[in-house]
Amino acid sequence: MKVKLDCIPCFQRQALEASRFVTKNINLQEKILRRVITELGAMDWTGTPPEMAHIVHHIVKQECKVNDPYKDIKKQYDDIALSLYPEMKGMVNNSVDPLLTAVRLAIAGNIIDFGASSQFDLNETIPNVLEKEFAINDFDKLLETLGRSKVLLYLADNTGEIVFDKILLETILNKYKIGKILFGVKGAPIINDAMLEDAEYVGINKLPGVEFIKIGIDVPNTGLERNSPEFYNLLSSSDIVISKGQGNYEALSKHSDIFFLLMAKCPVIADDLNAKIGDIIFKRT
Amino acid sequence: MKVKLDCIPCFQRQALEASRFVTKNINLQEKILRRVITELGAMDWTGTPPEMAHIVHHIVKQECKVNDPYKDIKKQYDDIALSLYPEMKGMVNNSVDPLLTAVRLAIAGNIIDFGASSQFDLNETIPNVLEKEFAINDFDKLLETLGRSKVLLYLADNTGEIVFDKILLETILNKYKIGKILFGVKGAPIINDAMLEDAEYVGINKLPGVEFIKIGIDVPNTGLERNSPEFYNLLSSSDIVISKGQGNYEALSKHSDIFFLLMAKCPVIADDLNAKIGDIIFKRT
Repeated sequence: MKVKLDCIPCFQRQALEASRFVTKNINLQEKILRRVITELGAMDWTGTPPEMAHIVHHIVKQECKVNDPYKDIKKQYDDIALSLYPEMKGMVNNSVDPLLTAVRLAIAGNIIDFGASSQFDLNETIPNVLEKEFAINDFDKLLETLGRSKVLLYLADNTGEIVFDKILLETILNKYKIGKILFGVKGAPIINDAMLEDAEYVGINKLPGVEFIKIGIDVPNTGLERNSPEFYNLLSSSDIVISKGQGNYEALSKHSDIFFLLMAKCPVIADDLNAKIGDIIFKRT
Repeated sequence: MKVKLDCIPCFQRQALEASRFVTKNINLQEKILRRVITELGAMDWTGTPPEMAHIVHHIVKQECKVNDPYKDIKKQYDDIALSLYPEMKGMVNNSVDPLLTAVRLAIAGNIIDFGASSQFDLNETIPNVLEKEFAINDFDKLLETLGRSKVLLYLADNTGEIVFDKILLETILNKYKIGKILFGVKGAPIINDAMLEDAEYVGINKLPGVEFIKIGIDVPNTGLERNSPEFYNLLSSSDIVISKGQGNYEALSKHSDIFFLLMAKCPVIADDLNAKIGDIIFKRT
């Protein structure tokens, strides 16, 4: 997906929210916002959202002199999600369809997205998503594909959310003979996306057969870019690909045979999916 | 309230949404957004939200060569709300507390706010607001004040929403001896705010004792500005003032003895009220 006009104000909101995680100085926040506006105004709007997000977040990092404005909030949401883990495991184990419940929870966890908005309520979202009707539901295709898969590529999205992903993976491993899980995390800080340290912190490294893949953030040497030939090889050599969240959908929606699990949280993504904001999506391309 | 940094990207979103009501031409939409960005970037950010909104919406009107980008959608929401009128009257009449139900409906109607977002679901909002707990609830003060009031100043907000206001006013007139209702509408088009023609279209002119007041939109000769001495006189000469929506709250929150009925729909207003987005507010200052 290319950037849409709606993304332009949204990047500014993101920059403002990011700067507030680092500084209470309103003059500095205004300086950052003005610089973001100036740079966006001078730019062609023909890139992808991740490319432009990188430029915008680079301004915040530079002006605030920090490498990772979301560092504290990322840890905080890993901890919040870990504290919910026992209760969520109970929900899955007591469910008549544990895999479907785990899928729903993994989508609920996708609300923890500071790219889309810092205004969300995880505790309200979980019960809602457990009941809500899917706007797109390819769950039956998941069952069929899992039954004949050995290698699972799982593209993670955000911190905190990866605890929900862990539950989904544990539920899959309980029932299906997956020999290898390739778990994709970001290779450098971008918004509140999960990195290797988060995955290890919440114990994804303890899952049998797991290996980590670093995904690039449109900056050289940060990992495997989602539009690189090496990444395409990875897609085609995996038996099943599960992709979490809006960012991965933006980057990969044109590829076939990917299971996209996400909550639609912005008008651009909702529109592309012919869905509404707040809709829950389980779409196999 | 002064403009906050959050308002800057929000104005751009508004401009983009407004332009889409008038043109499908993406190049023109981009031109408008770029001009809004340039003008906002060159401006001091020290005005009030209505002042800056006027500048931004003026760009849309000028570039699209229309006086009222929201003309069609305003009519559409007046019609939608009118079609809901019989059902809502039934809810009020069958309620154990008709006035409280009418107040809740009037707040639900405040979701029809294209300034806050064009992404809302009126049919979902109505039952939610009927059940939802108030974040601030000064309803008991309303009863007390209505009991000793003859002149009611009612500051309306949006089209469609004014049908909900009409029900609230009818419910008040049923029980209390209000001799005169001063119903404030905007004196010129701004976003989807209700004007005299809307109030007449939905039949507010049929309410006994009603008179209309045109409220200015920060442009000369559009009506009584909310920061003018004449307006202050109006406030102090009314026995009770009911104010709908975020815009009136932004303009008047520093005044005492006003009943503010609104749904918090943006982080700036929510923060000012110490509430969350989506919260319902019945606050007497």
